[in-house]
Amino acid sequence: MATTGDGKATNKQVILRDYVTGFPKESDLIFNETTVDLKVPAGSKTVVVKNLYLSCDPYMRIRMGKPDPGTAALAQAFNPGEPISGYAVSRVIDSGHPDYTKGDLIWGLAGWEEYSVITPNPSHFKIQHTDVPLSYYTGLLGMPGMTAYAGFYEVCTPKKGETVFVSAASGAVGQLVGQFAKIMGCYVVGSAGSKEKVDLLKNKFGFDEAFNYKEEQDLNAALKRYFPEGIDIYFENVGGKMLDAVLLQMKPHGRIAVCGMISQYNFEDQEGVHNLTTIIYKRVRIQGFVVTDYFDKYYKFLDFVLPYIREGKITYVEDVVEGLENGPSALIGLFHGKNVGKQLIVVARE
Amino acid sequence: MATTGDGKATNKQVILRDYVTGFPKESDLIFNETTVDLKVPAGSKTVVVKNLYLSCDPYMRIRMGKPDPGTAALAQAFNPGEPISGYAVSRVIDSGHPDYTKGDLIWGLAGWEEYSVITPNPSHFKIQHTDVPLSYYTGLLGMPGMTAYAGFYEVCTPKKGETVFVSAASGAVGQLVGQFAKIMGCYVVGSAGSKEKVDLLKNKFGFDEAFNYKEEQDLNAALKRYFPEGIDIYFENVGGKMLDAVLLQMKPHGRIAVCGMISQYNFEDQEGVHNLTTIIYKRVRIQGFVVTDYFDKYYKFLDFVLPYIREGKITYVEDVVEGLENGPSALIGLFHGKNVGKQLIVVARE
Repeated sequence: MATTGDGKATNKQVILRDYVTGFPKESDLIFNETTVDLKVPAGSKTVVVKNLYLSCDPYMRIRMGKPDPGTAALAQAFNPGEPISGYAVSRVIDSGHPDYTKGDLIWGLAGWEEYSVITPNPSHFKIQHTDVPLSYYTGLLGMPGMTAYAGFYEVCTPKKGETVFVSAASGAVGQLVGQFAKIMGCYVVGSAGSKEKVDLLKNKFGFDEAFNYKEEQDLNAALKRYFPEGIDIYFENVGGKMLDAVLLQMKPHGRIAVCGMISQYNFEDQEGVHNLTTIIYKRVRIQGFVVTDYFDKYYKFLDFVLPYIREGKITYVEDVVEGLENGPSALIGLFHGKNVGKQLIVVARE
Repeated sequence: MATTGDGKATNKQVILRDYVTGFPKESDLIFNETTVDLKVPAGSKTVVVKNLYLSCDPYMRIRMGKPDPGTAALAQAFNPGEPISGYAVSRVIDSGHPDYTKGDLIWGLAGWEEYSVITPNPSHFKIQHTDVPLSYYTGLLGMPGMTAYAGFYEVCTPKKGETVFVSAASGAVGQLVGQFAKIMGCYVVGSAGSKEKVDLLKNKFGFDEAFNYKEEQDLNAALKRYFPEGIDIYFENVGGKMLDAVLLQMKPHGRIAVCGMISQYNFEDQEGVHNLTTIIYKRVRIQGFVVTDYFDKYYKFLDFVLPYIREGKITYVEDVVEGLENGPSALIGLFHGKNVGKQLIVVARE
């Protein structure tokens, strides 16, 4: 992170060693140190940024696998030997781009490294509100927040009084979906993988009920217990057995917004889902979605959510790891449910 | 079928022996003969009808199983010891209902028997156009026709130039979906289970391409061959392995209208579907639907489809079995793909 006299700086990076199969291991990610020119070359429209916070998100597992035309529509595979990338909060060091000047704060895609040279695109947003924690732009006010907002309000088409189930409910997205559902006047239940997370759901995020899926012998029975009349909306973050159980409890004209299926990303052969005929009988809609399709609604989202944050009516729990050197274990921990709340990495605080 | 002097008639019926598990057998359906009063009792709003044509439809398998709250939203289970029921074309013999008079033709639910006493409901329609074959009201102009119409135009939201795949494509619904897709200006491919059916798809119904799924070693490869750029719309009639293969070939923002999953109805444990994560990457919508939700559009459908039929621009293939006594084998044959086109039974011609 040291800047040298010639306008260059050393730049620590997290590199993908090789394409990953199965669960990722820390040894799949290696460190490299290079130097970066902190000045944008004359005529270039790029921006040099210092990365402050890096976001750990489940979809990044998909980018660690071999290039696959099936997943390319979501995101390109990382290149072995190069830094991985993800959503970040960064400060502009130098800019050749007309929209950005030195000192600006940005959230959007950047490399997992101390400094990145980025070419701004519509998925980069200038940060204008700094009366809230800056790290929120990796979560509540960034990609995961938009995911919860678009997924719940646009994809789930919720109505007051409906019953909502959220899996991986204490995660970066789930904790918000639950709070949005309460604001809407829904009954909302969340599942998570530890007592600590279940307590958060009930006591901090205001879920009506919550359960630890690891302690349930029978997911169908658990869902029946909390939804005796059935589920109108399922916000799907995990896939596999949980989806199968939910399908049997859906109400007629129910909706399943498929945000992610973290339980499946590490399997070469995904688990089979057996109860799909129920979507006929129950007229269920299952809709996969990707947040970038909704980024044009970002400022509308900010107008909606900032007042709730300032009034303390929406809260957010982050799992903050200090130092880029601890990034790989934090990222890999996601797939074992080690994080409590939104997982992020502090690379630098300013 | 003989009427007796006292205003009664003998009434042959097809009875469900007991709830069915696995593939239904002919012995699951037994015959009974009773007598029926051809006069409606004074004060009753029922209607006595003579059943002319009975429709054999895959969903009837679901009604042959044990009562299940999961499927009750679609249809109640049949009662062992009683006649099964289904869509029928019938002629009114006597009526206590203000909307029906002797001689009227009706399509809607009736028992599998020579005469039925029905209580008209919104799923009974008076037949007003008889310049087309009366049997069409079990198929093209009845429930399956409405299924194809609502499923394709309302659920699939098709656009000109899109690519459409239809499974069980020569069946009562599929053959129409393909023709609607061509009218819309789509590229349409169908799958079926015999060379005869594949020939029908290409040479009679105007599908662009068709294949025999039983002769394909690799369904993924078959779909890639016919959809090198992917599938925009899948009209799902079969489920299981075909759905899994289709999921991998869907285009971004593709739509899957789930009309039925005939391959799964006879399994106690349904086959697993493994490729659901693709619906995230591709933003796919999977929508189950039930035709009765769209019955309010029936007259709009008639206005749309009758001109095409009269101009010979929509055609329909029926598999006609003579005699109620041959009904059970015809119905069971559906689950082995024995029917070529819409399976129906002639009970009486007038």
